[in-house]
Amino acid sequence: MAKSVNKSVIFLKYPQEFPVPGEHFEVQSHELKIDLKDNDVLLRNLFISLDPYMRGKMRNTDNSYTAGFKIGQPLDGAGVSEVIESKNPAFPVGAIVTGMVGWEEYTVVAGAKGLRAIPNARESKIPLSAYVGVLGMPGLTAYSSLKIIGQPKAGETIFISAASGAVGQLVGQIAKRLDLRVVGSAGSDDKVEYLLKELKFDAAFNYKKGNILESLRAAAPEGVDIYYENVGGETLEAALEVMKLHGRIIACGMISQYNTQNPYGVKNLVNIVGKRITMRGFIVSDFAAESGADFARDVGSWLVNGEIIYKEDIAVGIDNAPTAFVGMLQGKNFGKQVVKIADL
Amino acid sequence: MAKSVNKSVIFLKYPQEFPVPGEHFEVQSHELKIDLKDNDVLLRNLFISLDPYMRGKMRNTDNSYTAGFKIGQPLDGAGVSEVIESKNPAFPVGAIVTGMVGWEEYTVVAGAKGLRAIPNARESKIPLSAYVGVLGMPGLTAYSSLKIIGQPKAGETIFISAASGAVGQLVGQIAKRLDLRVVGSAGSDDKVEYLLKELKFDAAFNYKKGNILESLRAAAPEGVDIYYENVGGETLEAALEVMKLHGRIIACGMISQYNTQNPYGVKNLVNIVGKRITMRGFIVSDFAAESGADFARDVGSWLVNGEIIYKEDIAVGIDNAPTAFVGMLQGKNFGKQVVKIADL
Ligand SMILES: NC(=O)c1ccc[n+]([C@@H]2O[C@H](COP(=O)([O-])OP(=O)(O)OC[C@H]3O[C@@H](n4cnc5c(N)ncnc54)[C@H](OP(=O)(O)O)[C@@H]3O)[C@@H](O)[C@H]2O)c1
Ligand SMILES: NC(=O)c1ccc[n+]([C@@H]2O[C@H](COP(=O)([O-])OP(=O)(O)OC[C@H]3O[C@@H](n4cnc5c(N)ncnc54)[C@H](OP(=O)(O)O)[C@@H]3O)[C@@H](O)[C@H]2O)c1
Repeated sequence: MAKSVNKSVIFLKYPQEFPVPGEHFEVQSHELKIDLKDNDVLLRNLFISLDPYMRGKMRNTDNSYTAGFKIGQPLDGAGVSEVIESKNPAFPVGAIVTGMVGWEEYTVVAGAKGLRAIPNARESKIPLSAYVGVLGMPGLTAYSSLKIIGQPKAGETIFISAASGAVGQLVGQIAKRLDLRVVGSAGSDDKVEYLLKELKFDAAFNYKKGNILESLRAAAPEGVDIYYENVGGETLEAALEVMKLHGRIIACGMISQYNTQNPYGVKNLVNIVGKRITMRGFIVSDFAAESGADFARDVGSWLVNGEIIYKEDIAVGIDNAPTAFVGMLQGKNFGKQVVKIADL
Repeated sequence: MAKSVNKSVIFLKYPQEFPVPGEHFEVQSHELKIDLKDNDVLLRNLFISLDPYMRGKMRNTDNSYTAGFKIGQPLDGAGVSEVIESKNPAFPVGAIVTGMVGWEEYTVVAGAKGLRAIPNARESKIPLSAYVGVLGMPGLTAYSSLKIIGQPKAGETIFISAASGAVGQLVGQIAKRLDLRVVGSAGSDDKVEYLLKELKFDAAFNYKKGNILESLRAAAPEGVDIYYENVGGETLEAALEVMKLHGRIIACGMISQYNTQNPYGVKNLVNIVGKRITMRGFIVSDFAAESGADFARDVGSWLVNGEIIYKEDIAVGIDNAPTAFVGMLQGKNFGKQVVKIADL
C-alpha cells in the first residue's frame, strides 16, 4: 500500500483579487514520507471540499478569525478519506473517515486529530461526498443558522442569495418544509430554473439580469422577513430596502466582497434602525454544539427518505482542484463544489 | 385663563437635506379655538423636546415606521405642560403633565390621550425639562437598549458616538457604573472635554479632527465589544474595523445620514460575518414595557442622588424652535436640546 509520491496543491502567494492557478497556488508532486507515530493514520483522500471561506485564509493576516494558509504548504479543508495505514486502533485500515485533510492524494493525520469515522460507509445509500456537503459543514451551516438566527415562522418570507449553492439550496428546502415563502437569487438561468422546478422555490431570479432591487421587489412584493445573506454588496442593499419590520438578516457570508480591492459601499443601513432589523454574523462552529445532533438526525433522515435533494458539482482529479476552486468563487459551480481525488 | 391666539411651528414643505426655517417650517400665529368636550384638556406648554427622529417624520412616505408630519399642521413631539382648562377629572387644572403636544404655546389634547401626570412636580428637585430628557424618551432609549441589545459585561469596552448628546451622555454614565471602559466621540473639543472631565469617560475624541479610524484605534487600542451607534456612515465603518469577536452594535440612530441626498456607503460589513457581530436596530417604544419601570426607578434615583449628571441645551421661546431644531441636527446643541416655551 505504501506510496512514494504525493500530489498536492501548494499555496504560493497571497492573491489580491481572484487567485490564479500557477501564480497563487499550483499542483506539485513531492516524495511522500510516511513515518507514523502512535495514533497517527495515513489517509488516501477520496473527496475534498472547496469552500468560499478558503479564500479568506489566503490572506497574510494574524487577526483573521481563522489562521491563514501557509506559503509553501498544501491548502487544506474538509475531506472524505480511507485509512490505508494506521497506528490508531480507533481508525483501522479500511475505515472511511471525514476530517481536515490537505488538498492532496495522501495525508498523514497526526494523532488522527479531528477525524470522525463514517459508519457503514461502504454499504450506505448516501454518497460519500455528502459528508462534506449536505451532511457536512455547509449543511450544518444552513440548518443551524436558519433556526438560531432566522427564527423562521410559518407564513413568513425568506430571501436567499447564492440560493443554488452548497448552503443556499438546503436553506431553501428547510424553509419550504417550515411553510415559509421562499425566494432565491442565483447567477444563471439554469440555476434559477433549478430553484423553481426542482427545489420548488416560490420565486427566483437571475441577479445578473436587470436591476437586483427591481427583481427582488417583483419576487417578494409583500417584503422579506428573513434575508439569508451569502453575497453582500448590492444584494444586501436591495434586501435592506424590502425587509419588513423586525426582519432578521442571517449574515452567513458576503462572497461578492472576497475577491475585490474595491468593496461595495452599502448606503441604506439606516433601514436597520427604522425597521428594527437584527443582522447577525456567525461561524458554523459556533453552532455545532447546539445544533450538531439535531442536524445529523434531521437532514440525514430527510436525505435518505428523499424528502430533500442536493446538487453537487464534482471536479475529477487533484489536478483540477485549483481551477475548480476559482470557478466556484466565480459561480461556475452548479451545486456544492467538491473534488473527487480517487475512487473508493 | 382663556387665550385667543396660539403661536405654533407649522410644517410647510418636505426638506431634501437640512430643513430651513421659513422654507420648510415656520412660526405662525393662529386663533386658538377652545371647545373642550368631555375628558379633553387644554395645556399651556412649558417645555418641548427637539429630537432627531423628527427629521424622519419630515418625509412624504407612507411606509415609514412613524407617520409623517402633515403639511400645514403644527409639528409635534414630547412636552411638559400645565393643565389650564380641563374636562377630565384625572387631569385637573394646575396639574403638570408630560405627553405629545404641538410645537406651540397651547395644545388641546382630546381625551387627554397619552398624558401622564408628574407627581409633586412643583415641589420636586428635578427640573421639569428632565421629563423629556434624562427621565423621558432619550433616557429610556439609553437605559433599555444598552441593557437589552448591548448585554454589557464588566471589563468590556463600549464606544459611543454622538456621546455628549441626549442619549449618548446617559449611555456613557450607565456604562461607567457597570465598570465598562467607555470611549466616546463628539463634534467639538468642548464636548470631548465634557466627556472626559465631567462624565469620566476613559477616552474621547473629536471626530471632526483627523481620521476617525485612527482616532478610534488610539482611543480603544484593545478593540471594542459594544458600539452604541448614533451616527452611521464613516463612524460605523471605523467601528466595524475595531470591533472584537462577538461584538454588539446597538443601532440607535444614524444621524449623519438623515439630512443628505448622498448617503455614505459602508464598505466593510464583511466584518459582521467574520467577527460574529450582532447589529440590532430598535425603536424605544419596543422596550417601554420591558424596561420602563426599572428605568424610572433607577435613573430617577441616580439623578436625585447626584450619581449621574445631565446636560441640557435650552432654547428660549417658541420663536426659536425652528433654528434650535436645525442646530441640533448640525451638532450646535451641547446636551439634550429642549425649548422652553413658558415659565411655570
Ligand atoms: N458563516 C459560516 O460559517 C459559513 C459557512 C459556510 C459558508 N459560508 C458562506 O456562505 C456563502 C455560500 O457558501 P457556499 O459554500 O454555499 O458556496 P456556493 O454558494 O456553493 O458557491 C459560491 C457561489 O457564490 C456565488 N457568487 C460568487 N460571486 C458572486 C457575486 N459577486 N455576487 C453574487 N453571487 C456570487 C456563485 O453563485 P451564483 O452563480 O449564484 O453567482 C457561487 O456559486 C459564502 O459567502 C460562504 O463564505 C459561511
Ligand atoms: N431608536 C430610537 O428609538 C431612538 C431614540 C432616541 C434617539 N435615537 C437616535 O439617537 C441618536 C442621538 O439622538 P439624541 O436625541 O441623543 O440627539 P443628540 O445626540 O442630542 O443630538 C444630535 C447630535 O448628533 C450629532 N451629529 C449630527 N450630525 C452628525 C454627523 N454628520 N456626524 C456625527 N454626528 C453628528 C451632533 O453632535 P456632535 O457635535 O457630536 O456631532 C448632534 O448634537 C440619533 O441618531 C437619534 O435618531 C433613536
